[in-house]
Amino acid sequence: MKALVFDKELKLVDDYKKPVPKEGEALVRVTLAGICNTDYEITKGYMGYVGILGHEAVGIVEDVNINTDKCHSEANKQEILRCAQNDAKAEESPNSTNNIYKHPLIGKRVVPEISYGCKDPNCEWCAKHNYRHCPNRHTLGIWHKDGVFAQYFTMPVEVLFEVPDNVADEQAVFTEPLAAALEINEQLHIKPMDKVVVLGDGKLGLITAIALNAQNLNVTLVGKHQNKLDIARAQGVKTALLNDFKIEKIYDVVVEATGSVNGFETSLALTKPRGTLVLKSTVATGKELNLAPIVIDEITVLGSRCGQFPPALRLLESGKIDLTPLISATYEIDNAIEAFEKNKEKDTLKVLLKI
Amino acid sequence: MKALVFDKELKLVDDYKKPVPKEGEALVRVTLAGICNTDYEITKGYMGYVGILGHEAVGIVEDVNINTDKCHSEANKQEILRCAQNDAKAEESPNSTNNIYKHPLIGKRVVPEISYGCKDPNCEWCAKHNYRHCPNRHTLGIWHKDGVFAQYFTMPVEVLFEVPDNVADEQAVFTEPLAAALEINEQLHIKPMDKVVVLGDGKLGLITAIALNAQNLNVTLVGKHQNKLDIARAQGVKTALLNDFKIEKIYDVVVEATGSVNGFETSLALTKPRGTLVLKSTVATGKELNLAPIVIDEITVLGSRCGQFPPALRLLESGKIDLTPLISATYEIDNAIEAFEKNKEKDTLKVLLKI
Repeated sequence: MKALVFDKELKLVDDYKKPVPKEGEALVRVTLAGICNTDYEITKGYMGYVGILGHEAVGIVEDVNINTDKCHSEANKQEILRCAQNDAKAEESPNSTNNIYKHPLIGKRVVPEISYGCKDPNCEWCAKHNYRHCPNRHTLGIWHKDGVFAQYFTMPVEVLFEVPDNVADEQAVFTEPLAAALEINEQLHIKPMDKVVVLGDGKLGLITAIALNAQNLNVTLVGKHQNKLDIARAQGVKTALLNDFKIEKIYDVVVEATGSVNGFETSLALTKPRGTLVLKSTVATGKELNLAPIVIDEITVLGSRCGQFPPALRLLESGKIDLTPLISATYEIDNAIEAFEKNKEKDTLKVLLKI
Repeated sequence: MKALVFDKELKLVDDYKKPVPKEGEALVRVTLAGICNTDYEITKGYMGYVGILGHEAVGIVEDVNINTDKCHSEANKQEILRCAQNDAKAEESPNSTNNIYKHPLIGKRVVPEISYGCKDPNCEWCAKHNYRHCPNRHTLGIWHKDGVFAQYFTMPVEVLFEVPDNVADEQAVFTEPLAAALEINEQLHIKPMDKVVVLGDGKLGLITAIALNAQNLNVTLVGKHQNKLDIARAQGVKTALLNDFKIEKIYDVVVEATGSVNGFETSLALTKPRGTLVLKSTVATGKELNLAPIVIDEITVLGSRCGQFPPALRLLESGKIDLTPLISATYEIDNAIEAFEKNKEKDTLKVLLKI
């Protein structure tokens, strides 16, 4: 199959071996995928990853490997529950037999969560279904798992989520970054009266501001690019150019989405005493940071990464937000190298790969 | 009066003008005071402070300036309430008249909170009685207010707290740093099953570990000095030498109390995913910090500074903890310069000034 592989260099491969789903996994045919800055970081050596890149995708489930016999013989309670659910759905299928049946996900349009866990019964993270923090997790296109910039990928069925019919591929492909934005609400109680600033008008900042605003929160997006701010403004988000924005420490919640040390320092200067600075991007080093204001003003710095998919899909299904204005370009997978070049350009937001 | 003043250099002054309490303030005669590392930082230029140093003290109230006539004529509700309380107590005093009465604090042994607020009716911090974050606060020996290393200081009566009879001056002088330790409990719900590490066996680390341990929390104090660790161990705190302590990210709460960049990095390496790193000391810069682990592991970094006095006085009154083993030396105020030299020595913990 065709695949975009990183191994010291980025290369488009025509004859990459099509993956075979392991027990509990589905085979997904990719229809649309999105390039994330993390993919670009990986091409510079981040995580030391080698393999197919990519973790943002929409696709159709073509096959599921679940052996119900083995399933029934296992003592693990969760596993039995999952099997029972599969069986119940399988019985509705006219082709159902004891061992071979059409899994309900087959033929469905899905989006994959970014990680799957070890499922060791002693793993506290897997027990909570929070595979994103399992210390032995595998992560699509980032850590010990081939990614989605290919014709096919495999993932365990429990981390595949069906896309509602009214959500187009071009919206669904944003599920992963939107889930990352909504992770803030999972971690932090933002109150209706709280003053919220999102700093940075790149993809991350735009999606975060649009997502928080869609929840009736009092959000202002602050950035340096009027054309990017306008995308959020068109969806009702208050926006301001950084140069016109008064830097004063009066904001209850400040989301740092610039990824720069300067952005981190500006975020600190905007966070009120006892407020929360949400660190959404991995701030690059290269400059000494003064952390004393965190102590003096008793600020909470909250690291925030990936999120769960159901709330993101619910928000997309509601039609309250439209993320397609963030699409800067769409390339066929044959032109994936060119797509990566486009992604590096200063004014580019989301670049998609059609597969 | 005698006073230890910083004005470009540290000097003991014999004829500093005795302060006169303003309306609403008490005049306190200092009996015992403690040197804090912040005092030492100020002598190196921190905050650009000029004046009498010191913010940890015990003393006896000698006078209170409250004009009940003026009081009654004011419209501010809080003020009227305070006056009414004063009046009620004043009536119990046989010397009470309408204008001149013996304020109930006179003759009492008290400890001063570190800051007082602007009390502007529009100040949200003063409205919450959290003067420590009032943007126009005055802070003893640190910001726009003469400190306690003198025979007398003045402070508004609302930030003076009576010391229980069974708490000796040598314990009460620790009220301020103990309140700072207990501030962690004000900010963060530490659960009974949480694994807590306090990193750093200086004054701050010792007091924090002893205070958290006294609340039946599961605390380990980690440091580099067996003699200092032994002080906490004698009060039931689990302790470990840093060299013998396995660095693994399994702790729910890590309190960074070393004040060093290395300490901050070790604290990060101990904090489990989604755990909390309490930043208790203002980490010195001088080295680039990598904040990416905060995002990847979704860690909360919680800045924590000064605290409220009632819980600290309650803990001292209970007799559950004994902070006197932290006293390295006590000097007469005439030898205050020498006391500051002693404070700089590597193995010194708390140095007191007898006044």
